[in-house]
Amino acid sequence: MALKKKPVTGMKDILPKEMEIRNYVMNMIRETYGTFGFSSIETPCVEHIENLSSKQGGENEKLIFKILKRGEKLKLEEAKEEADLVDSGLRYDLTVPLSRYYSNHANELSAPFKALQMGNVWRADRPQRGRFRQFMQCDIDILGEPTYLAEIELVLATTTLLGKLDFHDFTIRINDRKILKAMAQYSGFPSESFDTVFIILDKMDKIGLEGVEEELKKEGFEESAVKTYLKLFEEISPDIQGVRFCKEKLAEVLPPKTAEDLETIIATVDAVKTADFKIVFDPTLVRGMSYYTGPIFEIAMDEFGGSVGGGGRYDEMIGKFTGTDTSACGFSIGFERIVMLLLERGYQIPSEKGKKAYLIEKNMPADKLLLILKQAEEERRSGTQINISIMKKNKKFQKEQMMTEGYTEFVEFFKDRM
Amino acid sequence: MALKKKPVTGMKDILPKEMEIRNYVMNMIRETYGTFGFSSIETPCVEHIENLSSKQGGENEKLIFKILKRGEKLKLEEAKEEADLVDSGLRYDLTVPLSRYYSNHANELSAPFKALQMGNVWRADRPQRGRFRQFMQCDIDILGEPTYLAEIELVLATTTLLGKLDFHDFTIRINDRKILKAMAQYSGFPSESFDTVFIILDKMDKIGLEGVEEELKKEGFEESAVKTYLKLFEEISPDIQGVRFCKEKLAEVLPPKTAEDLETIIATVDAVKTADFKIVFDPTLVRGMSYYTGPIFEIAMDEFGGSVGGGGRYDEMIGKFTGTDTSACGFSIGFERIVMLLLERGYQIPSEKGKKAYLIEKNMPADKLLLILKQAEEERRSGTQINISIMKKNKKFQKEQMMTEGYTEFVEFFKDRM
Repeated sequence: MALKKKPVTGMKDILPKEMEIRNYVMNMIRETYGTFGFSSIETPCVEHIENLSSKQGGENEKLIFKILKRGEKLKLEEAKEEADLVDSGLRYDLTVPLSRYYSNHANELSAPFKALQMGNVWRADRPQRGRFRQFMQCDIDILGEPTYLAEIELVLATTTLLGKLDFHDFTIRINDRKILKAMAQYSGFPSESFDTVFIILDKMDKIGLEGVEEELKKEGFEESAVKTYLKLFEEISPDIQGVRFCKEKLAEVLPPKTAEDLETIIATVDAVKTADFKIVFDPTLVRGMSYYTGPIFEIAMDEFGGSVGGGGRYDEMIGKFTGTDTSACGFSIGFERIVMLLLERGYQIPSEKGKKAYLIEKNMPADKLLLILKQAEEERRSGTQINISIMKKNKKFQKEQMMTEGYTEFVEFFKDRM
Repeated sequence: MALKKKPVTGMKDILPKEMEIRNYVMNMIRETYGTFGFSSIETPCVEHIENLSSKQGGENEKLIFKILKRGEKLKLEEAKEEADLVDSGLRYDLTVPLSRYYSNHANELSAPFKALQMGNVWRADRPQRGRFRQFMQCDIDILGEPTYLAEIELVLATTTLLGKLDFHDFTIRINDRKILKAMAQYSGFPSESFDTVFIILDKMDKIGLEGVEEELKKEGFEESAVKTYLKLFEEISPDIQGVRFCKEKLAEVLPPKTAEDLETIIATVDAVKTADFKIVFDPTLVRGMSYYTGPIFEIAMDEFGGSVGGGGRYDEMIGKFTGTDTSACGFSIGFERIVMLLLERGYQIPSEKGKKAYLIEKNMPADKLLLILKQAEEERRSGTQINISIMKKNKKFQKEQMMTEGYTEFVEFFKDRM
C-alpha cells in the first residue's frame, strides 16, 4: 500500500522556491508577449498518435510516451505490434498541435494569427542532468504573415522579454536558409548533398573551420568546392556588411530580396530594440529542423554556454498538414533553461509584497483567534501574504523553516497578552 | 499526410477568448491563495501506475489513461494482461501526487505545509456535454495542522477568491463525518451498514426526505431506526442552533469537541468573511470520498445548480501512503465550472489595459516601418497591447475579426501619409 515516493524516471517535483520563479517568468511572458498582440491558446497534452507520427517531428517521434487504448478497443490477444495497442500519445512539441489547432479553427481566428503557447511536452530521452522528460515549452508563432514584419516582431518580443527578466549582453544570431543553400550551391556542392553539408557545418561551434574542412573532405566532396565554401565563411563579416557581401557574391544563386530582407530585419531590430543585446548575421547558423524555409535565428548566451531559444520561418509546414498554404514563423524560448539560470543567480523577484508569519500560541480561545483572523484579513486585503500557524515547541526551528520560504517578519500571539 | 483536425475524443482546444478568462482566474487564484500563505507546487502529469492503482482513487482508478512501457521493457509477446504493458499513467487527481510529493519532500517543507496545486488531470469518462477528459483541478491543502484553524483558513481563502471573481449569494454547506456517523449510530443502524445509509442519504437533494425513507426501508433496515433517523433531520436547523442540538442529542455517541469545533468554524467564518455568502450546517452533506475523517464542506451555487467545489479533513490518508501520520485538510474548487460560469455571463476582465491594432499599408518602406515600430514600442512599454498587421484588401472584415478578439482601437498607416 506504500507509495513509490520518487517521481517517475526523468520527471521532477517542483518545490515552492522554483515555482515562484516559474510563475513569475510565466506571468512576464504572458504580459510581454501580450503587448505584442499574441493571444494565449492551449491544446490538449494528449494528441492523436497519427499526428505525432507524421514525420514532422524528426527524432522526437522516437521518444513518444504512448497511451494505451481503452475498453473494447484494446484487443490484447490480437495485437501484433505496438501500433495495435495505442491510439494517442503525449505531445513532444507544441508545433504539431498548433498546426492541428489552426486547421481546426482558422475561421474563428484573426489573420494573421499570433499565438502564444506555454505548455508541457514529453520526450522519453535518456535521463541526464538538467534535462527532464516533462518540460515546459514556450512558443510564439505568427501564422499568415508572409513579410519580414513577422521576423522583426518575433525577435523584438523575445528580446524585450529577456531584457525584462534581467538578461543582458546576449546575442541573436540570424541567418537565412536561402543564404545557407546559395552558399553551398555557389561552392559547387551537389544539391542532393546539401543536408550532409549543413550537418557538418552545424558543428562549426565545436570543431572550428578546420574541423569542418576535414569532415567535408572525409565525406568525399571535391576539394575545390570545400575550398570555395570555407573561403566564403572567412570573407563574410557578422553584420550588415556580411549580408551585403552575400548579396553581391551570391547574386546568381540567391533568390531576389533574400539579402535585402535580412538586412532590413537586422537594421530594424537594431534600431527599435530596447534590451541590451547584439544581433549578428551568422552564416554558419543551420538549426536542425529541416522544415525551415527562410530566416532562422537563435539566442546565444555566454552565461549558459549555448542556445536558450531559437526559431525561424517555416512557410511550407502548415500547408502540408492542413492542405492550405499558410506562411508561418515562430520563436521558441528555452523556458527551463531560463528558469535554471535565474535560480542559479539567486534571482530576487522584484517588488514582491511582504511575506509575514503569524505564530499563535496553542489552544488559543475562539474569541481571540477571531481577532487575529480579522487582523490577518485586513493585511491580506492589501496584498500582504499572511501565513498563520500554531506555535510549535521548537519555535526557533519553525521560524528557520519559514525563513527558507521567504517569511521575514514574524508576529507572535499569546493567550495572556491579548 | 493530412492531420486529424479534431482534438482526441473528449478533449478540447482552447480559443483565445476562453484562455483570457482562464489566465485571469489562475492569476487571481495564485494571488488570493498567496495572501493566505499557500505556496504553489507542481508534480509531473505522469505518475507511477502503482500509485494510481492504490485504491485511494475509488472509481477514478477505472478511468486512467495508461502509458505504454518503452524500449526493452515492453515485451509484447510475453504480455498476458494490460498490467504487463504499462508502467505509468496520467494522474486522475492532484491528491495522490500530493501525498507522494509530501512523502518525498517533507523535510524540505515548512510544517504545517500549505500547498496550492493547479494542474490538469485526466479521466477517460464517457464524453458528455461540458465534461472533458482533460481538465484543470485547483486544490489547496494544509498538511500537518490538526486544529480547526485549517478548516477556517481553507473556507476563508476559497470564499475570498470567489468574492473577488464576482460570485455572490453562494452557500458553504458544512458537516462533520463524526456527526454523520453519530446520527446513524444514535438511530440504531449497525455500524457495518453506515456506508449504505450514507449513500442513500446523499440522494436527499434529489429524492427528498420521503425518498430517503423509502430507500432505507427497501434496504431492510429496522423501521424504528429509519424513523428515529428521519426525525433527527427534521429537528436539526441549518445553523449553529442545529449544531448545539446535535451536541446535546448525540452526547453519548459523539466524540468530545466535535460539535464545539464545528460551531467555532461556522461562527468564526461568519464573523471574518469578506465575501457575500452564507455558511450553513447541513447534516445531510455526505461527500462521496470515504477517506474524510472530520469536517467536510461544499460550495453550492444556484447559478450552477450544483456544487462548484468541496473538501474536508482527511487525517488518515497521507499516513497510509507514507507511513507517518499526518493530519490533512483540503479544499478543491471546480476551476472548469467557474470558468464556464464566467464565460456564460460574458464576464469582462476588470481594468485591462487597452488593445490597439496598427494596420499598415502593404509594402511599407523599411524606414517608415521603423518609425511605426518605434511608436509601437513606446505604447507597449506602458502596457498597451499593440497588434501590428499588414492591411488586407478587405479591411472591414479584417477589423471585424480583430474586434472579436477585443481590439477596439485601430490606427492605420499609409505610405504616402507618413
